[in-house]
Amino acid sequence: MTFGAVMRQAIECSEQVKGNTYPNPPVGAVILDADGQVAGIGATEPPGGAHAEVVALRGAGERARGGTAVVTLEPCNHHGRTPPCVDALLASGVARVVYSVGDPNPEAAGGAQRLGAAGVEVVGGVHEAEVAAGPLREWLHKQRTGMPHVTWKFATSVDGRSAAADGSSQWITSAAARLDVHRHRAAVDAIVVGTGTVYIDDPTLTARLPDGTLAENQPLRVVVGEREISPEANVLNDDSHTMVIRTRDPHEVMRALSDRTAVLVEGGPTLAGAFLRAGVIDRILAYVAPILLGGPITAVDDVGVLSIAGAQRWRFDGVDTIGPDVRLSLVPRGS
Amino acid sequence: MTFGAVMRQAIECSEQVKGNTYPNPPVGAVILDADGQVAGIGATEPPGGAHAEVVALRGAGERARGGTAVVTLEPCNHHGRTPPCVDALLASGVARVVYSVGDPNPEAAGGAQRLGAAGVEVVGGVHEAEVAAGPLREWLHKQRTGMPHVTWKFATSVDGRSAAADGSSQWITSAAARLDVHRHRAAVDAIVVGTGTVYIDDPTLTARLPDGTLAENQPLRVVVGEREISPEANVLNDDSHTMVIRTRDPHEVMRALSDRTAVLVEGGPTLAGAFLRAGVIDRILAYVAPILLGGPITAVDDVGVLSIAGAQRWRFDGVDTIGPDVRLSLVPRGS
Ligand SMILES: NC(=O)c1ccc[n+]([C@@H]2O[C@H](COP(=O)([O-])OP(=O)(O)OC[C@H]3O[C@@H](n4cnc5c(N)ncnc54)[C@H](OP(=O)(O)O)[C@@H]3O)[C@@H](O)[C@H]2O)c1
Ligand SMILES: NC(=O)c1ccc[n+]([C@@H]2O[C@H](COP(=O)([O-])OP(=O)(O)OC[C@H]3O[C@@H](n4cnc5c(N)ncnc54)[C@H](OP(=O)(O)O)[C@@H]3O)[C@@H](O)[C@H]2O)c1
Repeated sequence: MTFGAVMRQAIECSEQVKGNTYPNPPVGAVILDADGQVAGIGATEPPGGAHAEVVALRGAGERARGGTAVVTLEPCNHHGRTPPCVDALLASGVARVVYSVGDPNPEAAGGAQRLGAAGVEVVGGVHEAEVAAGPLREWLHKQRTGMPHVTWKFATSVDGRSAAADGSSQWITSAAARLDVHRHRAAVDAIVVGTGTVYIDDPTLTARLPDGTLAENQPLRVVVGEREISPEANVLNDDSHTMVIRTRDPHEVMRALSDRTAVLVEGGPTLAGAFLRAGVIDRILAYVAPILLGGPITAVDDVGVLSIAGAQRWRFDGVDTIGPDVRLSLVPRGS
Repeated sequence: MTFGAVMRQAIECSEQVKGNTYPNPPVGAVILDADGQVAGIGATEPPGGAHAEVVALRGAGERARGGTAVVTLEPCNHHGRTPPCVDALLASGVARVVYSVGDPNPEAAGGAQRLGAAGVEVVGGVHEAEVAAGPLREWLHKQRTGMPHVTWKFATSVDGRSAAADGSSQWITSAAARLDVHRHRAAVDAIVVGTGTVYIDDPTLTARLPDGTLAENQPLRVVVGEREISPEANVLNDDSHTMVIRTRDPHEVMRALSDRTAVLVEGGPTLAGAFLRAGVIDRILAYVAPILLGGPITAVDDVGVLSIAGAQRWRFDGVDTIGPDVRLSLVPRGS
C-alpha cells in the first residue's frame, strides 16, 4: 500500500468523527508497523479525550516501533487539555511520520520540525488539497478567519423552487438525499433557520440515523428572527439544545456562534438571502430533485444582485448523484 | 476489438450527422474485414443520399467480403429514395451483421430476417439502450408517436433564475456551455421561442461553429405568440428559414412541426411553462451556472403544479460538467 492509500484510510476515519470533536479538529491516523502492515487506526476523540495519533498508537502498541504514522494533520506540539502528540509519537518509536495538512495554528505548530530534529523521517502534504477541502475544511476556516464556516443547504426542484405554490415542500428530495442531510447535520456544531421555517414546517432539526433514532452528536439548533416562537415548537423539544436569537442581522448571529466551527444554514429563502447578502456563506449545498414545481416560492429571494454583471460568482467543487437526486456543492470562486 | 467497441465507433459516427439526415435516421456503420480490421466507416448522408451501411461498404470495397458490418440500426429492407441496405449488404459478401436497435418501422423492418435467411450471421441489441436513448432517441420517438421529439433547453443560475432582476441574461452560462448549445442546435430540425424572447433578447437562433461561422445544418427558427414581431428582428435574417406561428397553443405549434423529428424549445419562461403544462416536452436540458442571481425572473413560471404531491416528476438521465457549468438532462420518469 502506498502512503497515499493509507492516507485515504485516515481521511475516511476522520470523516466519522466530524462534528464530535469541537473545538478540536477531526483528524484521522493510521499506524503501520515496520513491515508496512496496519497496526492501529484512530480518530480524534470527543473534547477532553485523546487526539487521533494517540488513539491509533494505543491500538498499535509495541508494533509502532520502527513503523510509520500516517495522519491527516501535522501532529501538534503543544500542551492543551492533552499532552502534545509529538511526545507520544517520539515515545512510540515510529521511524516515519506522514501527514497531510500543516498545522496553521502557531501555538500547536512546529510538530514536524521537532519530529525531524529527533531523527524521525517526516513527509508532509500527502493529499493536502483533498483534506483541506474535505474533513478539515471547516476547522481550517476557523483557524484562518476566527469565524465559523457556514454552509447553506437547500433542497430544490430542477426549476429552482423550494416549495410548491401552496407552500408544501415535504418532500422535494428523496429519502437518500435526506439521509445525506442528516449525515451533514451530525457533522456540524449548529443548524440555523429563520422563524418562518419554524412557523411553517415546525421541524425538529435533529440529526437522525438511518433507523430514525437520534445520532450521537446533536448540533445546537438556532432560530433567528424577531418574532416569538411557540413554546410547543418541535425545535424546542428535548432532543438537543436550542438558541433563539431575536435579530435579523446575520452578523449578530455569527457573533453568537463565533466559538463554533461548522454551521449549517437550512433556510428558508428569507434567511438564506440575508446570509448571502451579508457575505457570510462559505459553501452552498444544493440538493436538486428531478421534479418541476413552478410557482412563486424559490429557494432564495434576494441575494443583492441587480444585473447579470453583478452576479454572485461561485465554483462547483462537487457534483454527485444521491439516489434519484443530484447534489451540487459550491465554494466561492477563487477559493 | 469487441463488437461493443466497434459499435461505439458507429455511434460516434452517427452523432456527427444528427440534424443532417431528416427525415432519415442518423445511423452510423463500420465495416470490419475478415481479419477484424476496420475497412470502412460511414454515416447517413443528407436526404436523398446514401444510408450509413452503403457509405461504409463503399469505403470497404472488396475487403467487406467475409467481414462484419456493425450498424446502429437494423438495416432497412425497403425501397425508399434509395434501394434497401439489405441488398447492398448481401451483394458485399459480409458474413455477419451486428446491429443495435431493431427498426420499429413496419415498412422498413424485416432486414435482420432477410439477412439471416440468406445465410448471414445476425446479432442484434448491441448497446441498444445507449443508442435508443442517444443518437436515435428523437427518430425512434417520431416513429413511435408520429410527433417530433421536443427538448426544452434552458440556462439557469444555481438558484433557478434565467435572468437577473433587471432582465439581463447574457451570459448566465460559460462559453463552453454555449458551444454545447450550438452543437445541439445543429442537431435539431427546429428551434422554438416565444415573441417575448425575440422582443427582449433579439437572438439570431442559428447554430454556430466554435469559430463563429454558421454550422452546415441550420434548423428552422420558429416564433410563437400573437404579437407581430419587427421585420428587423435578427430571427428573420437570411441565416436560416423562419416560421412565425401566431398562436399561444402548444398543440398548434406541434401540428405545424409534425413533419419534423427533433425540436428544441429555448424559452423563455412563459413559452416553456405553456409547453410543460401541455405535456409536450420529452426531454429537459438544464445548463446550471455556479452563480446566484435571486430576483423575480425564473426559468419557468407556472408548470400547472399546485402542491408537492402534484409535482411534475422526471428522472435524471445525464449529469455532466461542461467547463465551469453543469448540464442536467432529464427524461420523463418511467421512460
Ligand atoms: N427547500 C428547502 O431547503 C427549505 C428549507 C427551509 C425552509 N423552506 C421553506 O421555506 C418556507 C419558509 O420561508 P421563510 O422565508 O418564511 O423562512 P425563513 O427564512 O426560515 O424565516 C423567515 C424569517 O426569518 C427572520 N429573519 C431573519 N433574518 C432576517 C432578515 N435579515 N430579513 C428578514 N427576515 C429575517 C424573519 O422573522 P421575523 O419576522 O421573526 O423577524 C423572517 O420572517 C417554508 O415553506 C419552508 O418549507 C425550504
Ligand atoms: N435562460 C434561458 O434559458 C432563457 C431562454 C430564453 C429566454 N430567456 C429570457 O426570458 C425572457 C423572456 O421571457 P418571456 O416569457 O417573455 O419569453 P417567451 O416565453 O419566449 O415569450 C413569451 C410570449 O410567448 C407568447 N406565448 C406563446 N404561447 C403562450 C402561452 N401559452 N401563454 C402565454 N404566452 C404565450 C406570448 O406572446 P404574445 O403576447 O405575442 O402572444 C408571450 O408574451 C428574457 O429576459 C430572456 O432573456 C431566458
